[in-house]
Amino acid sequence: MDKSSHNRRGFLKLFGLASGSLALGRATSSAQEKQIKSLVDADISSRPSGSIYMGDYKAPKLSKVKIAFIGLNRGFTHVASTCALPEAEIVAVCDLHQDLVDRAIKRVKDKTGKDPKGYSKGPDDYLNLLKDCQPDAVVISTDWASHTPIACDCMNHGAHAFIEVPLTQSIDEIWKLIDTSEKTRKHCMMLENVNYGRDELMFLNMTRQGLIGDLTHGEAAYIHNLRDQLMEKERGEGVWRTGYMEQINGNLYPTHGLGPVAQYMNLGRGEDNFASLVSYSSPAVGRAYYAKEKLPSNDRWNQGKFICGDMNTSIIKTKLGRTIMLQWDETTPRPYSRLNLIQGTQGCLAGFPTRVAGEKFNNGNYHQWVEGEKIQSIYDQYDHPLWKRMGEKAVKMGGHGGMDFIMMARVIECLNKGEPLDQNIYEGAFWSAVGPLSAQSVAQDGQRINFPDFTRGDWKNTLPIPVIG
Amino acid sequence: MDKSSHNRRGFLKLFGLASGSLALGRATSSAQEKQIKSLVDADISSRPSGSIYMGDYKAPKLSKVKIAFIGLNRGFTHVASTCALPEAEIVAVCDLHQDLVDRAIKRVKDKTGKDPKGYSKGPDDYLNLLKDCQPDAVVISTDWASHTPIACDCMNHGAHAFIEVPLTQSIDEIWKLIDTSEKTRKHCMMLENVNYGRDELMFLNMTRQGLIGDLTHGEAAYIHNLRDQLMEKERGEGVWRTGYMEQINGNLYPTHGLGPVAQYMNLGRGEDNFASLVSYSSPAVGRAYYAKEKLPSNDRWNQGKFICGDMNTSIIKTKLGRTIMLQWDETTPRPYSRLNLIQGTQGCLAGFPTRVAGEKFNNGNYHQWVEGEKIQSIYDQYDHPLWKRMGEKAVKMGGHGGMDFIMMARVIECLNKGEPLDQNIYEGAFWSAVGPLSAQSVAQDGQRINFPDFTRGDWKNTLPIPVIG
Repeated sequence: MDKSSHNRRGFLKLFGLASGSLALGRATSSAQEKQIKSLVDADISSRPSGSIYMGDYKAPKLSKVKIAFIGLNRGFTHVASTCALPEAEIVAVCDLHQDLVDRAIKRVKDKTGKDPKGYSKGPDDYLNLLKDCQPDAVVISTDWASHTPIACDCMNHGAHAFIEVPLTQSIDEIWKLIDTSEKTRKHCMMLENVNYGRDELMFLNMTRQGLIGDLTHGEAAYIHNLRDQLMEKERGEGVWRTGYMEQINGNLYPTHGLGPVAQYMNLGRGEDNFASLVSYSSPAVGRAYYAKEKLPSNDRWNQGKFICGDMNTSIIKTKLGRTIMLQWDETTPRPYSRLNLIQGTQGCLAGFPTRVAGEKFNNGNYHQWVEGEKIQSIYDQYDHPLWKRMGEKAVKMGGHGGMDFIMMARVIECLNKGEPLDQNIYEGAFWSAVGPLSAQSVAQDGQRINFPDFTRGDWKNTLPIPVIG
Repeated sequence: MDKSSHNRRGFLKLFGLASGSLALGRATSSAQEKQIKSLVDADISSRPSGSIYMGDYKAPKLSKVKIAFIGLNRGFTHVASTCALPEAEIVAVCDLHQDLVDRAIKRVKDKTGKDPKGYSKGPDDYLNLLKDCQPDAVVISTDWASHTPIACDCMNHGAHAFIEVPLTQSIDEIWKLIDTSEKTRKHCMMLENVNYGRDELMFLNMTRQGLIGDLTHGEAAYIHNLRDQLMEKERGEGVWRTGYMEQINGNLYPTHGLGPVAQYMNLGRGEDNFASLVSYSSPAVGRAYYAKEKLPSNDRWNQGKFICGDMNTSIIKTKLGRTIMLQWDETTPRPYSRLNLIQGTQGCLAGFPTRVAGEKFNNGNYHQWVEGEKIQSIYDQYDHPLWKRMGEKAVKMGGHGGMDFIMMARVIECLNKGEPLDQNIYEGAFWSAVGPLSAQSVAQDGQRINFPDFTRGDWKNTLPIPVIG
């Protein structure tokens, strides 16, 4: 999915400064491995005094949410959604590109009559935005490398931070985000829009009703051919995203498929949690093949060497011993899929195409999927209340079939009512951590890697996400 | 798939004698772990003098193949197929159950006019068959625990051995089969019928033509709800097969999905080979749930404890770094699948439902699967020559859509012509080894396990399986 062009800072970090995030996936020196290990095995008991656990956190109610947007490529969709939400007021927008700032301001004016401030004077201009506008919340849709510094600055300036996926490619930065959120008592939510997809909401509703019994296994993926990003030279994600494939071999984009499955299983929320993973990547050959086919021999992408395997496959083990098979492939020419499968003792729900089978469907004939035209009866019976409330409008608004709109609507609703967000900082942390942890496993030929407990033990007392009405 | 009722011997071994095969998957003592390790890391350089490598082996031509069948439950299908093959003569049939012997003899008489001898006087009566009838070849469709001793006896009596899947649950027994085959110079082929399925043959044909580029990743499975085997008390596989689920936690039935994918990739045949695997099982809860639902509390299956996870997921890594995601689930109520997916730099072929996508299909629009009615054009263009030659007759004969018949036809054809078999002993060994190796990985919480090199290095000089005309 498309990200902002707020990318120069990240690009410099990626290729110049060799930030902590990038060391993780390389063929590592033993010194690096030790460093990695220390990050992963960090003492979890030491939440600084004055900091608090942010799961189930209720921030003070905001009758009107003053909100700003940093990064306006992918971020434009969020601006557009927010224009339709009366409890939000868009106070400022920011990007490296003046034209994207102008487009966003025009949209806000046209739709709300308000006139947000624009910021586009370089990679640090967002700091002026924070100082000038004092927003309650900031949506950050920049490149991965700038997520953490920007989000921490936002929280330190008193704003809740909402960050595009994944949070980062670095375990170190995940801890920075958590520490800053716990210290400032500001929300730090990763914007996993897929958790608001119609099917994903429905499967959550169905698993909560016990329709497939005790959950045992899930499958998640981001299989999306994005080879054409190799052609993006000035604008677009390809400019900053492709370079990671020369630096890291692992699952660079784990959260879209994983987020919903994790919430079906209540991972990090009282019932169960992430324990460990193993990961293997296939050979890294598809990007080089395509670059050779489509680009001149002196092109940037024909000069370097891609090391990131075309298909990464991981298996996650939970504390209860459940498994999640997780895949990532942005290279192979094949149709899109997030798999979105969850199964239990009494049945199985799956996506791409949407289908269900089990003792409680199809008169108990679980040897056939309920799918195609017949799936309508499942929607009729089991659509999530949130979809029933907002789905029609969401589909009209657009944005990945409506999920983008419902997400922003819920963000504003929760801030407005002072309720816990639907995704807490620790969920974003666990889901994003699969990136660097899978890279570690791959670098060690499939070695099992344990998840850090980002909650420092507090996941056990965190409430499951309810079926929101 | 259904196996013979030749099961008492195996049942005794399973629950009485604690054979080597059973130690492998248990929560193991450290002594057992050492023993396991020594089996896996066995010195591969030591093929005994006088023994020869059996890959690409050509046995002397047999103008008429005198063939016998031991185990007549699943084996009856093989008898039925063989009745239609003029170069074969069925000389004897054997089972613990007289009625199954009588049924097989009747079929042979009706279809061929010949009168094979019958053997049903207990678990050792097959030895009399071997002595009396001196068959050229024996098809062994008994329970897993008796495969190895019976097959070794057959080879030592001068007969080629054809064994139902998997060969065994024991690495130790796999080596016994290999050593015996290499010493006696008799074929020992595992009867992986799925390699003769229409789709699998076609995908082999397509990958050989380079239609999806360089192969990078495959997926294979045996997802088949067989919970009702819990009800089998006197006859049927459930009698002996279910007990393994109280003894081993791993992938008990890996070969149906894996065999075809391994041949697409030429594993063990010159180009590439199995290197290692990692494996996790989900919780073992579905069998107990079903036993409690369907059986009285004093039933055998409500007295013990199932330890074998409902869903086992493994990732295999090859020498070239390719990956195979492999699953096994005979418990969850969901539709059948073997996944049967192979992908490369230029596209992806997949099963359940059959579908293809890539640069060379659908006018290069690889964002859509060619599937449903449109798949016919793929069959029209790419059906395997063997399917074109035998498919029509095979479908008429039945047996898993024709694959059973083509397999037996090829077995007899190769023996008749003195050609190498389509599956050599080492392929059966690697594919079956996933059983005990996955159990080892699961017992060690996802630890990477290396494959033994069953070929002792000779896989490098073994020919790829050709597209047989």
